[in-house]
Amino acid sequence: MSFINNWLRPDIKAVNAYHAPPSTNMVKLDAMESPFPLSDELTGQYLTYLADAQLNRYPNASANELQQTLRKLMDIPDEFGVLLGNGSDELIQLLALACDAQDIVLSVEPSFVMYEMIAKFAHLNYQSIPLTNDFEIDAGAMQKAIETHNPKLIFIAYPNNPTGNVFNRTVIERIITSTKAMVVLDEAYYAYATDSFLADIAQYPNLVLLRTISKIGFAGLRLGLLIATQDTVSQLDKLRLPYNINTLTQVSANFLLQEKNTINANVSIILAERQTLFDELVKINFLKVHLSQANFILFKAPNANELFEFLKENSILIKNLSATKQLTDCLRVTIGTEEQNQKFINIVKSFYD
Amino acid sequence: MSFINNWLRPDIKAVNAYHAPPSTNMVKLDAMESPFPLSDELTGQYLTYLADAQLNRYPNASANELQQTLRKLMDIPDEFGVLLGNGSDELIQLLALACDAQDIVLSVEPSFVMYEMIAKFAHLNYQSIPLTNDFEIDAGAMQKAIETHNPKLIFIAYPNNPTGNVFNRTVIERIITSTKAMVVLDEAYYAYATDSFLADIAQYPNLVLLRTISKIGFAGLRLGLLIATQDTVSQLDKLRLPYNINTLTQVSANFLLQEKNTINANVSIILAERQTLFDELVKINFLKVHLSQANFILFKAPNANELFEFLKENSILIKNLSATKQLTDCLRVTIGTEEQNQKFINIVKSFYD
Repeated sequence: MSFINNWLRPDIKAVNAYHAPPSTNMVKLDAMESPFPLSDELTGQYLTYLADAQLNRYPNASANELQQTLRKLMDIPDEFGVLLGNGSDELIQLLALACDAQDIVLSVEPSFVMYEMIAKFAHLNYQSIPLTNDFEIDAGAMQKAIETHNPKLIFIAYPNNPTGNVFNRTVIERIITSTKAMVVLDEAYYAYATDSFLADIAQYPNLVLLRTISKIGFAGLRLGLLIATQDTVSQLDKLRLPYNINTLTQVSANFLLQEKNTINANVSIILAERQTLFDELVKINFLKVHLSQANFILFKAPNANELFEFLKENSILIKNLSATKQLTDCLRVTIGTEEQNQKFINIVKSFYD
Repeated sequence: MSFINNWLRPDIKAVNAYHAPPSTNMVKLDAMESPFPLSDELTGQYLTYLADAQLNRYPNASANELQQTLRKLMDIPDEFGVLLGNGSDELIQLLALACDAQDIVLSVEPSFVMYEMIAKFAHLNYQSIPLTNDFEIDAGAMQKAIETHNPKLIFIAYPNNPTGNVFNRTVIERIITSTKAMVVLDEAYYAYATDSFLADIAQYPNLVLLRTISKIGFAGLRLGLLIATQDTVSQLDKLRLPYNINTLTQVSANFLLQEKNTINANVSIILAERQTLFDELVKINFLKVHLSQANFILFKAPNANELFEFLKENSILIKNLSATKQLTDCLRVTIGTEEQNQKFINIVKSFYD
């Protein structure tokens, strides 16, 4: 038996390594990326700006400029604190490390898979409450779980991934006010939703928000942010690894995120495309299509595995969730460009013809 | 009392937040950075290469190309595995998370402060064995600690920071063969040392190496790597957060690290400058100067605090370690350019005149 097999925690050994599916020459509608590349003009300006970066020096430890730019982009009030991470994943891990070993992390199911994975990495106990059939939070079961388990952290994605809906606001407010836990609302898809809990941070000291720039055009930058009271951020910041956001990311994001108009215009296109795609999918009688407040649509399809493979054969990659509990026969398609969406819908139609 | 003060682990609340000292308009000789910026020519080529990066897409999950480039740069045999992190810090944290809560992490003192900090974050118990007066590992105390504490992880910086020396190789080999722990040799300063344990990985399955590109010209990229057997890397990889190395870092490092000749030439300059600076410092009777196999020199100076402040008043920032246990009156200066080093030495001389 090899050294590492003797040495490593059995629960980590049992984890299946994450593998991204091959996507060369595919229309990528699997990962909630924005389909819009930078314009050549913006790329040119941005690279000129980057030319001045001193790569031989450590990054700015607090990333102040980038923080200010993010505040402007997302209208984050000065009274709140902001903490940056390499993707929301690093921030979820930071929150997990802030807990004591064996503390309880509570979430709902199905939701973002990294809550459970990272809880496991950090020696926490993960509990999840199944969503109702219409993908709402089961308020009664959640309250009972809060009383029974006394969770330290509660993760709720708002809108939820992979279902795409926002949960009932009143239910979330009741969760926030009835627990001693830190309640983390993951607003990764905030740009595509009609509601946010950003302003509510002023009211609920145990409320923490996560956001990311991955879904609004910059997945390659892996930049996430945590928003909470100044007090909470200054304490959590002690767990942040020094210089975690590198110079390339700081300089690039600081330049690119000032293009608020372009970012908003692209979001508007995706919202319109989401409506079009939804309408087209609904027309296909075989499908059950779920309303979405994110940049993807979840739908239930007879012979989901076959449809998924048929799309792949036609060079379209979406996400197959049909093996996920509560999501039997479900597929998730990211909203692409008009052309990509049309190609996708045509192939789905031809599959059921 | 605020929410976070009730909520957060007391040991984290007690941590003092890391603050980088202000360095605007200073000659920065405090952080082991390379003093050499990219040439304008290389910057131009590199930015042209970066123009093709698709920032709206997630990064390559396995960073294959960059891995190959690192293997060539550092002559890493194909038979070993490589794992990438955002700085060695992320890899130290990954190793800490691979342990069970309350496992023992063993190191020496003084050494790199993040071993202890990250062990604390990950609920591990940190033990350190004081170095001898000439900064060697106390072999007897180390063996006893291994027997008493049965550590899960042993961190040894080779060369050591902040002392600059490499430890006795035989002592390290005896540690590796007499413990069930994973022994992590942190070779952050490998480029400036005459010895390495890279080849020894083939022989010792419990040996893991850390390296970084921070000290050879690219601190702004925050790229670290772990080198171990393929078997060990494929298991540890399960703890790596998906897409942890962003596209900017992958593309930039992949281009810039192919300039092996330039990197090696810059290392040679620093080695020559280290010798010159050492010789100059030794000439000052008041100082005790330590031999270094890294890109910095540790020296003991009467009135170290005053000398540190005097240097600061003259726009030179070095590292004041005089409050560190076993390092009373010690300062650490990073090797800069010839001009920077000369300026530094002149000010030190004038202080003692």
